[in-house]
Amino acid sequence: MATATLTERAARKHGTVQVAQGACLPAAEDHGHGILHSTGLSVRLASRSGDLTSPTAGFAPGSIQANLIVLPSKYAFDFRNLCARNPVPCPLLAESSAPGRFDSFKSYIPGVPDHELFLISEDGSPAIDIRTDIPRYNIYRSGKLVESGCTDIREHWDKDDSVAFLIGCSFSFETALAEAGLTPRHVERGMNATMYRTNIPLCPAGVFRNSTYVVSMRPYKEKDIEAVRNITRAFGMTHGEPIDWGWDAVDRLGIRDIDVVQWGDGPVTVDGKKFGKARAGAMLDGAGKDDDEEVPVFWGCGVTPQEAVMRAGDRIEGTVIGHMPGHMLLLDVRDEKTRKQT
Amino acid sequence: MATATLTERAARKHGTVQVAQGACLPAAEDHGHGILHSTGLSVRLASRSGDLTSPTAGFAPGSIQANLIVLPSKYAFDFRNLCARNPVPCPLLAESSAPGRFDSFKSYIPGVPDHELFLISEDGSPAIDIRTDIPRYNIYRSGKLVESGCTDIREHWDKDDSVAFLIGCSFSFETALAEAGLTPRHVERGMNATMYRTNIPLCPAGVFRNSTYVVSMRPYKEKDIEAVRNITRAFGMTHGEPIDWGWDAVDRLGIRDIDVVQWGDGPVTVDGKKFGKARAGAMLDGAGKDDDEEVPVFWGCGVTPQEAVMRAGDRIEGTVIGHMPGHMLLLDVRDEKTRKQT
Repeated sequence: MATATLTERAARKHGTVQVAQGACLPAAEDHGHGILHSTGLSVRLASRSGDLTSPTAGFAPGSIQANLIVLPSKYAFDFRNLCARNPVPCPLLAESSAPGRFDSFKSYIPGVPDHELFLISEDGSPAIDIRTDIPRYNIYRSGKLVESGCTDIREHWDKDDSVAFLIGCSFSFETALAEAGLTPRHVERGMNATMYRTNIPLCPAGVFRNSTYVVSMRPYKEKDIEAVRNITRAFGMTHGEPIDWGWDAVDRLGIRDIDVVQWGDGPVTVDGKKFGKARAGAMLDGAGKDDDEEVPVFWGCGVTPQEAVMRAGDRIEGTVIGHMPGHMLLLDVRDEKTRKQT
Repeated sequence: MATATLTERAARKHGTVQVAQGACLPAAEDHGHGILHSTGLSVRLASRSGDLTSPTAGFAPGSIQANLIVLPSKYAFDFRNLCARNPVPCPLLAESSAPGRFDSFKSYIPGVPDHELFLISEDGSPAIDIRTDIPRYNIYRSGKLVESGCTDIREHWDKDDSVAFLIGCSFSFETALAEAGLTPRHVERGMNATMYRTNIPLCPAGVFRNSTYVVSMRPYKEKDIEAVRNITRAFGMTHGEPIDWGWDAVDRLGIRDIDVVQWGDGPVTVDGKKFGKARAGAMLDGAGKDDDEEVPVFWGCGVTPQEAVMRAGDRIEGTVIGHMPGHMLLLDVRDEKTRKQT
């Protein structure tokens, strides 16, 4: 079965967590990678217990995965507006049902009522505790990353004021790609996703201005791009079709070096070489344009809200919390629930 | 009353219509500029009769104004998706209730039922005929503008296949700006709006790719920008708050010369001088940065779909119709119906 294989691949050991800057709280050992995390609930429970601290690509195949941003309530209106104006990088799936609520969410997914976002365990465990149910988190103050890779944010949560927002994640359409024989490279190799800062401006909203898109990237053959566009187009709540593709897109997006990522793992060829370096080598060898050549394909990425928080800088007072990129919240909503007819 | 004054100003004679390229169908004399067009219906009826062929900024104050794009039905899905992915330049207000329907629309405006989009005249005239009710139209084939300024598109309408889409227009928030003492310059002077092509990429959707935002521009003083942002933010269905502002934004948007517009009338200072040339002169005179200095403020613009059609080129077969920029469709929906609490 394609789905089981997908989980097994992704469940390979991810090694140590890279922390770009800031302090890192002690993390639990990365237990549990040998076992399958087949449902959203099981991934949340394993994160809650501290057993799971790895990226989640390929976990609970067919379940919606979500990015997190937690803001003081006074920025909630501006943030909703940022999402409404930039639905490709920031598709808003759900938010805390009231300021301070870490255990109850209202759904913005058409056709999905609030109580279907998170299912309760048979042993009666709470369905969701957003303070513990993500493998790793990032903490920001005044737009600066001050801690990265925390496994628990209970001490940072304001019980009267914190509002958690859930943003769609492109991991959600990777099962559909795999079913079409187009398994993303990073899933196949059990790596984290590949993410870049770009120069594409976000439409500003209140306090959130001067920010740009973050994108995820997956290498695909030229000849497969229309199929990849067609498959992912249906997933409008989780970034939809790519925003750009091809080697020319690297320049258009203002990415200096395709081998240097800002979040996640660097991109590799099918045989594990550096993606950009291999391309440069092939160019030197006189390789021409070829439908079988792999080119970078870029999607909007739900790390964008964290970029927007950093760009807002001092304009945002108080603590902001995000997931650590690649380490997502698993919902119990199936991807077909958010898939549109095309 | 501010609103009557606004209409009177805009109702000044607009002179001859500039046609950038392509042939222009014979247009009726610009009668009717002395009379007030106080309701959406009266503007539609005057356009239908051929009496009104001018831009509509300031007409029927407080009524929603809309951009038009008419596509063969096979592109309707992609176009809806283009709007969903790019709601700032392309906020979708309504579309033909079925392919071929020019007289019946379904509403996408929250809280506005279909039958409230267009009111029927007391004399029993049809509420809407999209083929005649806009002052002037543009015709495209294979992405090329082939006719500009037509006053009637009945001969181009496919009764079995044409689908008309209505996109929000920033003229809709100009009444609110005027009520705050921030009347846009082009309304004050009875000119058409000021519109530019930019280098900001649209998120692609199916056949619509490689396109960029079109923006409208209004000069405002630095010190008024936060007020202007706050007022227009509420109008999410008609482009909302600006996407960028300040002289630096001209470069960021890839606009070569602020005095050279791609659609509408060139921008002017309060005393009618060329906006960019006056700024260059002031710089030479050693004027420093000043809160009273006017700077350009840019909003998403509903001419963007016409740009997207031109960029799609040969990928779009058949006839596409747009409004002539600045010459809008008036709805009978009041702006407060689309205004959000902020």
